[in-house]
Amino acid sequence: MSKKYLYYFSEGNDAFGGDKVTMKNILGGKGAGLAEMTAAGMPVPQGFTITTEACTQYYADGRQINDEITADIFEHVKGLEKITGKTFGDNENPLLVSVRSGARQSMPGMMDTILNLGLNDEAVEGLAKKTNNPRFAYDCYRRFVQMFADVVMMVPKSLFEVEIDKLKEVKGVKNDVDLTADDLKELVGTFKKIYEDNEGKPFPQDPKDQLIEAVKAVFRSWDNPRANVYRKMNEIPYEWGTAVNVQQMAFGNSGDRSGTGVAFTRDPATGAKKLMGEYLINAQGEDVVAGVRTPSPISHLHEQMPEVYDQFVEIATRLENYFRDMQDMEFTIEDGHLYMLQTRNGKRTAQAALQIACDLVDEGMITEQEAVLRVEPKQLDTLLHPQFDAAALKAAEVVGKGLAASPGSACGQIVFTAEEAEEMVKSGKMKKVVLVRLETSPEDIVGMQVSQGILTVRGGMTSHAAVVARGMGTCCVSGCGNDNDVKIDEEAKTFELNGHKFVEGDWISIDGSTGNIYGEQVATVAATGNKNFNRFMGWADAARQLLVMTNADNPRDAQQAVDLGAEGIGLCRTEHMFFAEDRIKAVREMICARTVEEREAALAKVEPFQQGDFEAMYRIMGERPMTIRYLDPPLHEFLPSKDEDIKELAADMGMTFDDLKNVVASLHEFNPMMGHRGCRLAVTYPEIAAMQTRAVIKAALNVSAETGYIITPHIMIPLVGEVKELKFVKDVVVKVADELIKASGVDMKYLVGTMIEIPRAALTAGEIAKEAEFFSFGTNDLTQMTFGFSRDDAAKFLGAYYENKIYESDPFQHLDQVGVGKLVKMAAHDGRETRPDLGLGICGEHGGDPSSVEFCHKVGLDYVSCSPFRVPIARLAAAQAAIKNPRK
Amino acid sequence: MSKKYLYYFSEGNDAFGGDKVTMKNILGGKGAGLAEMTAAGMPVPQGFTITTEACTQYYADGRQINDEITADIFEHVKGLEKITGKTFGDNENPLLVSVRSGARQSMPGMMDTILNLGLNDEAVEGLAKKTNNPRFAYDCYRRFVQMFADVVMMVPKSLFEVEIDKLKEVKGVKNDVDLTADDLKELVGTFKKIYEDNEGKPFPQDPKDQLIEAVKAVFRSWDNPRANVYRKMNEIPYEWGTAVNVQQMAFGNSGDRSGTGVAFTRDPATGAKKLMGEYLINAQGEDVVAGVRTPSPISHLHEQMPEVYDQFVEIATRLENYFRDMQDMEFTIEDGHLYMLQTRNGKRTAQAALQIACDLVDEGMITEQEAVLRVEPKQLDTLLHPQFDAAALKAAEVVGKGLAASPGSACGQIVFTAEEAEEMVKSGKMKKVVLVRLETSPEDIVGMQVSQGILTVRGGMTSHAAVVARGMGTCCVSGCGNDNDVKIDEEAKTFELNGHKFVEGDWISIDGSTGNIYGEQVATVAATGNKNFNRFMGWADAARQLLVMTNADNPRDAQQAVDLGAEGIGLCRTEHMFFAEDRIKAVREMICARTVEEREAALAKVEPFQQGDFEAMYRIMGERPMTIRYLDPPLHEFLPSKDEDIKELAADMGMTFDDLKNVVASLHEFNPMMGHRGCRLAVTYPEIAAMQTRAVIKAALNVSAETGYIITPHIMIPLVGEVKELKFVKDVVVKVADELIKASGVDMKYLVGTMIEIPRAALTAGEIAKEAEFFSFGTNDLTQMTFGFSRDDAAKFLGAYYENKIYESDPFQHLDQVGVGKLVKMAAHDGRETRPDLGLGICGEHGGDPSSVEFCHKVGLDYVSCSPFRVPIARLAAAQAAIKNPRK
Repeated sequence: MSKKYLYYFSEGNDAFGGDKVTMKNILGGKGAGLAEMTAAGMPVPQGFTITTEACTQYYADGRQINDEITADIFEHVKGLEKITGKTFGDNENPLLVSVRSGARQSMPGMMDTILNLGLNDEAVEGLAKKTNNPRFAYDCYRRFVQMFADVVMMVPKSLFEVEIDKLKEVKGVKNDVDLTADDLKELVGTFKKIYEDNEGKPFPQDPKDQLIEAVKAVFRSWDNPRANVYRKMNEIPYEWGTAVNVQQMAFGNSGDRSGTGVAFTRDPATGAKKLMGEYLINAQGEDVVAGVRTPSPISHLHEQMPEVYDQFVEIATRLENYFRDMQDMEFTIEDGHLYMLQTRNGKRTAQAALQIACDLVDEGMITEQEAVLRVEPKQLDTLLHPQFDAAALKAAEVVGKGLAASPGSACGQIVFTAEEAEEMVKSGKMKKVVLVRLETSPEDIVGMQVSQGILTVRGGMTSHAAVVARGMGTCCVSGCGNDNDVKIDEEAKTFELNGHKFVEGDWISIDGSTGNIYGEQVATVAATGNKNFNRFMGWADAARQLLVMTNADNPRDAQQAVDLGAEGIGLCRTEHMFFAEDRIKAVREMICARTVEEREAALAKVEPFQQGDFEAMYRIMGERPMTIRYLDPPLHEFLPSKDEDIKELAADMGMTFDDLKNVVASLHEFNPMMGHRGCRLAVTYPEIAAMQTRAVIKAALNVSAETGYIITPHIMIPLVGEVKELKFVKDVVVKVADELIKASGVDMKYLVGTMIEIPRAALTAGEIAKEAEFFSFGTNDLTQMTFGFSRDDAAKFLGAYYENKIYESDPFQHLDQVGVGKLVKMAAHDGRETRPDLGLGICGEHGGDPSSVEFCHKVGLDYVSCSPFRVPIARLAAAQAAIKNPRK
Repeated sequence: MSKKYLYYFSEGNDAFGGDKVTMKNILGGKGAGLAEMTAAGMPVPQGFTITTEACTQYYADGRQINDEITADIFEHVKGLEKITGKTFGDNENPLLVSVRSGARQSMPGMMDTILNLGLNDEAVEGLAKKTNNPRFAYDCYRRFVQMFADVVMMVPKSLFEVEIDKLKEVKGVKNDVDLTADDLKELVGTFKKIYEDNEGKPFPQDPKDQLIEAVKAVFRSWDNPRANVYRKMNEIPYEWGTAVNVQQMAFGNSGDRSGTGVAFTRDPATGAKKLMGEYLINAQGEDVVAGVRTPSPISHLHEQMPEVYDQFVEIATRLENYFRDMQDMEFTIEDGHLYMLQTRNGKRTAQAALQIACDLVDEGMITEQEAVLRVEPKQLDTLLHPQFDAAALKAAEVVGKGLAASPGSACGQIVFTAEEAEEMVKSGKMKKVVLVRLETSPEDIVGMQVSQGILTVRGGMTSHAAVVARGMGTCCVSGCGNDNDVKIDEEAKTFELNGHKFVEGDWISIDGSTGNIYGEQVATVAATGNKNFNRFMGWADAARQLLVMTNADNPRDAQQAVDLGAEGIGLCRTEHMFFAEDRIKAVREMICARTVEEREAALAKVEPFQQGDFEAMYRIMGERPMTIRYLDPPLHEFLPSKDEDIKELAADMGMTFDDLKNVVASLHEFNPMMGHRGCRLAVTYPEIAAMQTRAVIKAALNVSAETGYIITPHIMIPLVGEVKELKFVKDVVVKVADELIKASGVDMKYLVGTMIEIPRAALTAGEIAKEAEFFSFGTNDLTQMTFGFSRDDAAKFLGAYYENKIYESDPFQHLDQVGVGKLVKMAAHDGRETRPDLGLGICGEHGGDPSSVEFCHKVGLDYVSCSPFRVPIARLAAAQAAIKNPRK
């Protein structure tokens, strides 16, 4: 055998020679912890780990454990017999084992566990005799039969539970522990019959068969639906596989001096430094989870078994010092002897994570840089958005689930249009509204701002609703129509979700961090300040090399982003400014213009508004760079599409219905994503770019004069695919800008750059850099074009892609480093070859995604830009990237 | 001065040391010809050439001739004075010159010419005295004033012509030559007044000013609208610029022993070997073109001036032998002396091109490989399609112009729907129909087949109509709504084009080679066989290294392609087979299926049809490879979109309107191009791929058994972007195929490959080649995704891109070698790294485009695939590519 697929706990720690990462990758988290505790001389029931690589091999072999590995497993069973002095399947002193999963990253409750394996009709008698405790022996056996049937053979658990309940009723007892040895023996008989009825064959008596089947079941459980969902949610690659730990049983169910429990070295909710946990006397692991009896707090153990408690405290302290992090431990007490079954770095809330990181630094246990690595960037989100009250949430019923599009929690009364949202809130008829729409459009922006949350039927993580909501820091659940039975009628103002009917004014609550939808009022609590936040972020800022900018196009967002640490604006979308009520009319006149003169006249009306917008933002941003992207969306987005709306607007604009309808028809596109937009608008109508340039430059000159700031506008031309195209638009910009600056007599500099969001731009970046002074990677569009699917349409088939493990994560959430990343790398390299001081940044949604931020750091970009509420996440992610991958 | 911008005719031939290509690039075609004739000692009026690089410099300097070049021009004028013994602007013996454009490739009539430059009020008297011919002198002067005013100052020609006519009336004469010296002197006065009235300043008297203005005018004419149109049509890059030739005048208008003419060494219409041409006595160049007098055939010169004629014949023969090609020559006779003004390879018809190529080989003048290079691949088209009768065409009025989407000429009665087309032709109510549609859809296929031609309002060169029409060899003009004023109402059956109204049954004629639309009946003549065709194509086939396959999805097209020399099918689109009347119902049932079982039941109905289609095609293709692409288009294309059609279909399918409407709505996509299509269909509905595999393999097995052919099906999975996606579909294919082959007991091989049409596929080609046995570059989609614009929508803005010279050609017609080509090269390289015997081909529309074929040859592809009627073009283009770029 070329590869070593099995390790005794006692050899794991040495075998990897201190390489803890590889060790954890191969042995899994649980296996590595057991090996380390064994090495440290702690009381660990011995056993061996079947590696994650054996799991991968199992799948490669078509879901079979091959002969080599099977033989090796039995070899290790023999070894374990020697260590324990017990014999597998023995009728007098049987070796019983637990078989438990253990992946690289803990996936609590997702995979399967089998306890007491090795029992059969004879061994159970041996165990009863040896322990002189038949009740215990039969308790073990009935548990084993049930778990084996459930986990290995998928016989529903409920069939067994019904029988226990029946028996308890017959016997007139309340708790399982009150059942006698004979009761349990009878139960074993019933259970085995259920097994046989369901499987068509008797319960397996050979412990070797039991073991191999159990190991297979654990491997298989890596691919069960709940594990797949968990993995996708937590971005755990399918390829990793799980290890399996086969460990001698320690029996928490062998009497009143026995028990089992879990504990944390610090409070996982607050981070406070104190031992937290609970335990159950005379119980096995699953009893704690099942909640049949209420466990006692760990402090009680101090009274019940002081010496065990002291030993546990001592071990817990050693473990924390050893791993230099808060530990989450499982233990069992067998007849007054403590056994450690697991230790791992404990999961914690964001608040606790910050507290623990700061405390560990103060305690001298870790450095500031290490502390920076201890907090999940994504967790910071929960510190910034309102959350549901935990108690209220527990009582609420989930009536449906959409995409967790923008974090936070919202509760409000349903409205179906943006206008209603605005009206209801303004008039005070409703205090809190949740906007429920088929999909949102740019015209809904004001209504979205006044809403507590946004729920859409269509659209993905990067739909209009999702993007805008994240920008505003408003909670959003999108695309709830993808996986639910949904009917919406915005005109009739009715919404039906999985049979639950809602009308305007009904209460609804949505959780933008989970995608859960509750058909009722669920109380929320506001985001609270965190005293450790600024200290911790200071360490992060000291470590990072990427600048963190924000995507903002109004003063409110800009201010919010600056407050959250943004160092500039990486993307100011000017089209959002076009939709506001006081200018949309002029924009529409511009679109309907038939001559350059008419178009210029309409643009002249828009210009002062646009200039005013920029001025307001310059006042906030000061000397921080502000990157202004010129008009991008196809023009039809500014016009209505329904006949009745066209009729109304035509009257409003003094046009005939037919004329306006013709304009709308002429703007129709088969694939608007790939149509007349971006700089293509500026090529066909250079006067738009000229107007925008006047607004930008005049605003910069004015605010500069007013405040004394040295302002350097960054002008960004979108959707460029060819250097001559950029040159054409740049010529328009430079002509207008230079004239204005010259006339002002001030020596103001400005930069003209471009988005790299079309594959051809990335492929010809060396040429484009001749004209562009900076590149901003628009990875939303770049991802769409590179994959050849539109984010709005992909939702329909990406499900099948995840199911079949073709893609593991949404490429719009995590930058596809293989394909899209290759283009980014190529363009960054070729661009800098042409222009060594070329500015490089990213302004797609990926700018706020930690793994994508790490990629940006690695390929040498200067900055990332993301929505305001993601700025802290990006700051932390950038810091972690820099610590893990120092730039030369 | 670092660069040499001017060359005397006498130094051109030596200066480039025999590098005729560079010489022509720098001096232009005319300049190079004059230099070569001068070097050969032929009678050429001397002069100098201002290079094409000076033109480029003129544009770089902001449309100014810089001081260095200006000085150099006058330096060369001095040199010319020495050569001729005349002096520029002299009052006694003035040097007069012509100033003529001359680009690399001849652009007849596109740019400007000025004759007799150097005359002013005094020099004209000198000329009169010296020649003792005041009539001649004033004839020169009035011509010069008119030409200068027209060309340099853009004073309309007609203002002058009116005056000539008036004067002739007053004087009672018919021809210009009958005007006396005094008449002409009077005319000069009138012309100068017109000039002054229009320009606000007197006619320039300084010959130096005249010269510089004239040179500028010629440079400027490179960018005039008609030159730009011609260049775009003939794919002449804007960057080339034009040279300017300044040449001593030879006067064809100095009396009855003078004249001017043009001639060809062979007949440009038929290729017959005989001197062809015509001349005018006592005339200058423009008189021949203007058609004021009828010129005499060149043979008359034999009688009129035998010694001149003999000299000309001798020179013509020498020139043809020297250039080893048919020559197109301009000459002038001044007082019985012959002067050669130009020689160039003559333009010719396709028929003549083949005849001349064969004759030159037979005459031993060129090799077969050289002959292959002498015919423009695109010209072959005219040999294969019906053409308008030349005389009929002359009389017809062009009422509009669309895109020349599929060559050939068509004349027929207008129908507005495919059904009508079919019905009218079947019933014999109309013999010839032209289908006029807003745009065509796959359902129109039968109607398209019975039509003479197809005219669409929307859509580009690669719209459905264009692609299908080219495939069928049917004439098509697409997108006539882009540049014309068009109203179409398919229901009311009316069509209005630039004010011309048409109803059903009206006659219309369209030219798919020019895009011209005629609102009347224009007679056509059938394509005629050409006796030289097969001989010539044999030489081409011997030279080429690329295989030429075809895109065909029905037996008719397949047979046509084989007849035209196709060596296999590179793209058989299976979806076209889904539309036929006898199966569309089952296809629709498949789409509306709610369970896998329902879907499989519907597919089972489609399968025998599909198998039958493949069998018919295998019988034609025999052992030639046939590459079958699995279902590609989004499913909504198979369903109607209008409510009334949905209602009808619902009734037909036994569904409620609401249910079917719901299916249609659920298939709606924002960007169908980037939606649920291609292999994404096979990932979500693997049963479709399974059905198609059964049909392919069973057909191959059956025909193999029936005919004894060894058939190797090539199965092609479309729209792959990730290797796991291909693997998933391939697994389905292999499972089904292997089972069927095993059951048959025959040892049949098959290949599974993929389209490379998504940028990500090209970027990850090394991975994809692990699963793909061949790549076929789908450069239509690859171009769309790489440029980020859809071919259907791009028509709206590409006009502005051409106008502003951002793009010079349609990237859907000519493969973009810079951007898309980079992806193709990368993928070919990476793919072959993984799998050295990976098959590589191209099946986009570019497969039939000569410049793209050359690219494919250069990057090492194995084959190109194109529509049947383009097969000969691709064969010739591949041969030319191989001759020009021999593979190592």
